[in-house]
Amino acid sequence: MDHPEVELVYLGGESSAGKSFGDLYPQFGSITNLPIEAVDPEIIGSRCEVVFLSLPNGLACQITPQLIEKGCKVLDLSADYRFSNLTTYTNWYGTERSDRTVAATAVYGLPELYRDRIAEASLIGCPGCYPTASLLALSPLLKQGLIVPETAIIDAKSGTSGGGRQAKVNLLLAEADNSLAAYNVARHRHTPEIEQICSELAGHEVTIQFTPHLIPMVRGILATVYATMRDPGLVRDDLITIYTAFYRNSPWVKICNSGVYPQTKWACGSNLCYIGVEVDPRTGRIIVMSAIDNLIKGQAGQAIQCMNIMLGWDETLGLPKLGFYP
Amino acid sequence: MDHPEVELVYLGGESSAGKSFGDLYPQFGSITNLPIEAVDPEIIGSRCEVVFLSLPNGLACQITPQLIEKGCKVLDLSADYRFSNLTTYTNWYGTERSDRTVAATAVYGLPELYRDRIAEASLIGCPGCYPTASLLALSPLLKQGLIVPETAIIDAKSGTSGGGRQAKVNLLLAEADNSLAAYNVARHRHTPEIEQICSELAGHEVTIQFTPHLIPMVRGILATVYATMRDPGLVRDDLITIYTAFYRNSPWVKICNSGVYPQTKWACGSNLCYIGVEVDPRTGRIIVMSAIDNLIKGQAGQAIQCMNIMLGWDETLGLPKLGFYP
Amino acid sequence: MDHPEVELVYLGGESSAGKSFGDLYPQFGSITNLPIEAVDPEIIGSRCEVVFLSLPNGLACQITPQLIEKGCKVLDLSADYRFSNLTTYTNWYGTERSDRTVAATAVYGLPELYRDRIAEASLIGCPGCYPTASLLALSPLLKQGLIVPETAIIDAKSGTSGGGRQAKVNLLLAEADNSLAAYNVARHRHTPEIEQICSELAGHEVTIQFTPHLIPMVRGILATVYATMRDPGLVRDDLITIYTAFYRNSPWVKICNSGVYPQTKWACGSNLCYIGVEVDPRTGRIIVMSAIDNLIKGQAGQAIQCMNIMLGWDETLGLPKLGFYP
Amino acid sequence: MDHPEVELVYLGGESSAGKSFGDLYPQFGSITNLPIEAVDPEIIGSRCEVVFLSLPNGLACQITPQLIEKGCKVLDLSADYRFSNLTTYTNWYGTERSDRTVAATAVYGLPELYRDRIAEASLIGCPGCYPTASLLALSPLLKQGLIVPETAIIDAKSGTSGGGRQAKVNLLLAEADNSLAAYNVARHRHTPEIEQICSELAGHEVTIQFTPHLIPMVRGILATVYATMRDPGLVRDDLITIYTAFYRNSPWVKICNSGVYPQTKWACGSNLCYIGVEVDPRTGRIIVMSAIDNLIKGQAGQAIQCMNIMLGWDETLGLPKLGFYP
Repeated sequence: MDHPEVELVYLGGESSAGKSFGDLYPQFGSITNLPIEAVDPEIIGSRCEVVFLSLPNGLACQITPQLIEKGCKVLDLSADYRFSNLTTYTNWYGTERSDRTVAATAVYGLPELYRDRIAEASLIGCPGCYPTASLLALSPLLKQGLIVPETAIIDAKSGTSGGGRQAKVNLLLAEADNSLAAYNVARHRHTPEIEQICSELAGHEVTIQFTPHLIPMVRGILATVYATMRDPGLVRDDLITIYTAFYRNSPWVKICNSGVYPQTKWACGSNLCYIGVEVDPRTGRIIVMSAIDNLIKGQAGQAIQCMNIMLGWDETLGLPKLGFYP
Repeated sequence: MDHPEVELVYLGGESSAGKSFGDLYPQFGSITNLPIEAVDPEIIGSRCEVVFLSLPNGLACQITPQLIEKGCKVLDLSADYRFSNLTTYTNWYGTERSDRTVAATAVYGLPELYRDRIAEASLIGCPGCYPTASLLALSPLLKQGLIVPETAIIDAKSGTSGGGRQAKVNLLLAEADNSLAAYNVARHRHTPEIEQICSELAGHEVTIQFTPHLIPMVRGILATVYATMRDPGLVRDDLITIYTAFYRNSPWVKICNSGVYPQTKWACGSNLCYIGVEVDPRTGRIIVMSAIDNLIKGQAGQAIQCMNIMLGWDETLGLPKLGFYP
Repeated sequence: MDHPEVELVYLGGESSAGKSFGDLYPQFGSITNLPIEAVDPEIIGSRCEVVFLSLPNGLACQITPQLIEKGCKVLDLSADYRFSNLTTYTNWYGTERSDRTVAATAVYGLPELYRDRIAEASLIGCPGCYPTASLLALSPLLKQGLIVPETAIIDAKSGTSGGGRQAKVNLLLAEADNSLAAYNVARHRHTPEIEQICSELAGHEVTIQFTPHLIPMVRGILATVYATMRDPGLVRDDLITIYTAFYRNSPWVKICNSGVYPQTKWACGSNLCYIGVEVDPRTGRIIVMSAIDNLIKGQAGQAIQCMNIMLGWDETLGLPKLGFYP
Repeated sequence: MDHPEVELVYLGGESSAGKSFGDLYPQFGSITNLPIEAVDPEIIGSRCEVVFLSLPNGLACQITPQLIEKGCKVLDLSADYRFSNLTTYTNWYGTERSDRTVAATAVYGLPELYRDRIAEASLIGCPGCYPTASLLALSPLLKQGLIVPETAIIDAKSGTSGGGRQAKVNLLLAEADNSLAAYNVARHRHTPEIEQICSELAGHEVTIQFTPHLIPMVRGILATVYATMRDPGLVRDDLITIYTAFYRNSPWVKICNSGVYPQTKWACGSNLCYIGVEVDPRTGRIIVMSAIDNLIKGQAGQAIQCMNIMLGWDETLGLPKLGFYP
């Protein structure tokens, strides 16, 4: 944690409670002397002003009301506070919710779309990694009415770190390296999250095709987005102009020059999102490619970006501005 | 070359002429004592019954007429003999053609579609790697009229060996590993090749969206194909039945069980193509995934499969039947 | 199983009993219809002539006596039958042994050293993957007395498939890829196995330095072996001559040409071992590099090679003769 | 360049002269507006206080005398100024030298050994990547006389980015991925550089065994160093104490806890060197493992560390303090 305005005062964990950070990550042993403590909202609330929750789905909603009541600002990295319609949440994630009042105050933590709301929020539902990449690619098109929303197809590719640090046979190097496959086709739980925001941008209910793939690499997401243009006369440079304007106040989004498509590695190790656009006059489609580091802009970095906004700081404070290359 | 009915009698090369096979590939030094000779159609024609040409685009069409005249059966792995309409070839590949008579006799070497024509041909234009994966996924749908052809989108992913054994900075391990990007979006030269066969299957001109991506792995192609179904009532198992029937005489195509999606690694090291199908009732689309080894079914192996058919042998003769795992 | 003389009649497993092979490996579903059955020596003995055991250490020694009694030829891939001195086994592996009579008949299954004994054996203790690579590199030197045995250092590097198909966090792609480390330094359990054979070759007790490393790749072992030469006048070509002679009847060992060092990928997908030798006149040391596929020559392939010898067949029968490249 | 005290005023290049930085690296286009200019010592000298030279071997020695004369501080990343004995340089690198007076003032830029000399130098010969990792592992042992120097063997493993950004077939992902080999065995040009410093530390001429290997990963070097201890009674914890004391004023060297061995990934993305030590009482050897990022501590980062020292700044200024994980 290199953030100049933040002091770490509490580390929580269940299975790792009692251990030190250096027990889990030997190389990070010198970062902090804080022990990992059991998760106790009472203690957290009394010690912290800002709380980041990174728990399995269905747990944050149990302790967040207490934290909010104690005056904490809460940024939740699970799915619990991403949905304005809790029925959608329950349909896709299974858990029944009893925290409707608190949930109603949550803001979807995608600063490029909801900067103002985030600035005034106490509770942020941080977006999933795939929705971050997908929505940054799609938003200008939907907001400006440039595409037929129902034609949108998101073919997304992620490094295996998206699967978390749990031992699963299919994520072993020996299994996953030098191979490639789709998974959860037509039923990945990031779909309703993407659709919720797309519907809000389009002004009506939108159904989206979303297909995730597992790529033999550690970090990075590339979303390749296809959609049919309403006006087949638009050319690539028009769209670059539109995208550049749309993100002119968003320091973490970089629009690639004409003819340049983003490499995920460009974004890795930073909070950046690189977007490249292409138009196919033969088919009347636009193809947008967006690349992020799934663990930074797709997760922890975006949460810090939201915190910066909530606290009135510069949106880029304490966040890595450039990845290394190669 | 483990083929029981084939004897290697000639190896040709330009820059490597005069060297032995073991000079180029130390580990293969013991396979053959044949020297690599300069490319001379006269000598090739007098020594060989079957000739495999693997040359840069635009060269095969210069020597093939001579080889055919001398009675050789020719299997060309370049783009030169893939197009029934040579104008399309010239538009996309630049070379003007003077071998129209010979070119008119060429058969597109995708045995799963053109087994009978291949059996009677003397000249085969072997398909590109992407078209092989793409067409095996799309053909049953187009042939049976199950989809709206213009909605077809092929999002393809390939290992870097597809780029050949030439030193290019962007294909260095240090550059390409742990990264991912699209390339040649809306203008890859495999597009017209895919469209030609799709049009033939659909019975009218079809335009296809095709986007290739470079994946940080050595071998393998996965094509993820999207299309809108004409009859939204079709379910996954219907389609598995249709695909299984379509490929019932094709020993190299394996249709995955319901809910199983192919890993490229399953196909690697074999001439197999694994196909998985999914239906999304929410969007009315079918999603088909096909996995091949780009260097075997996508290249040399398919050429041998064609040769087997041309010579009346079992289609599987001398070809690797299963890859290793992991 | 492509072996022309072998019929598969029994598949055993504990956790997977009741499943089919295709349940575990969808891509291999068509290889066999045999169900996976619980491990019952009575049934195995009645149905099989040859039994391959690939169990956790300490289990094979419980059922092998029964199998041998029933007339089976047994090839055990665990450590149970690798040691002529069972005290060494118990010191390093913990298990007390009660099968001393049967264990005394076991032969160490490294055909390049013990071809004759293997031909007459009923019980084979198949070598570990690291010992196979290490001993093929060291044996000519020790047998001929060319080095000071105590100076031998083996710096070994293995792909992560050596860790088996169990989910371990440190073997996840996200953890292991693009990283490299040593493990079990000075205490890996393959050390006494290597020392046992080295001692037998040297004619006296030899202590060896052995350090394994985990490499971010799927398959392959490279052993880099250092030793001080007794006669500092030996040059590289002398040693190539000596190695070539030593392995002249060993079809699976390839000695690289002068100045060529083996790539693990050359061996992967085959039962081959590639050996390269170098001499450093400045230090008086020989450096030998040996490359194998840890899952073939380092495991299952070598077991089949032993079976071929036990049954009087050609040593190469049914085994992959060349890997693909790249 | 995030260094708070440094302003970039000149970028030089031959083949890339006239281009912008963003032409070479699209993702870095926004870092600087400086054009890349032809290499002209006159201009460089008039514009820069500190000059980093990263040229092919044999070029820096042609322009450095001019730069020094103009009052620049020069940090050369090539081999030109690493050798106190220029005959050694010429023997291994071929180039005859005419800049002996200037070369005599050069200091070897390994701050952990030569911090004081660097502080007073105007010309730094920055160490190679392998020597950095090797010498940080070996120095405490040699300085304290704990080992028999002639027994030292360095088995080094490097990611392929060490080969630079030139297109070479053997460094293509398709060739290098999932494979492993040694190269330049007994004749790598980093050997005399390591020996020079080892000899200085030991107080007499020392010959070292050094073997580099190419690992299928982008960044990182692991040096596994073997040596026979003079006092076989030393145990692991003694050595950890000795190493910790030796590097107590070196913020970039981290000694691992007892029983922990460094992963290269821990160091990647930072200027850190992680060192793990092990003792084998059976063989009387110490095994030391050191891990660095070959492009930071092994190259550019170490040069900046030297600059910091030359200019009296904190040694850690402007350098990345921790890598990301995973």
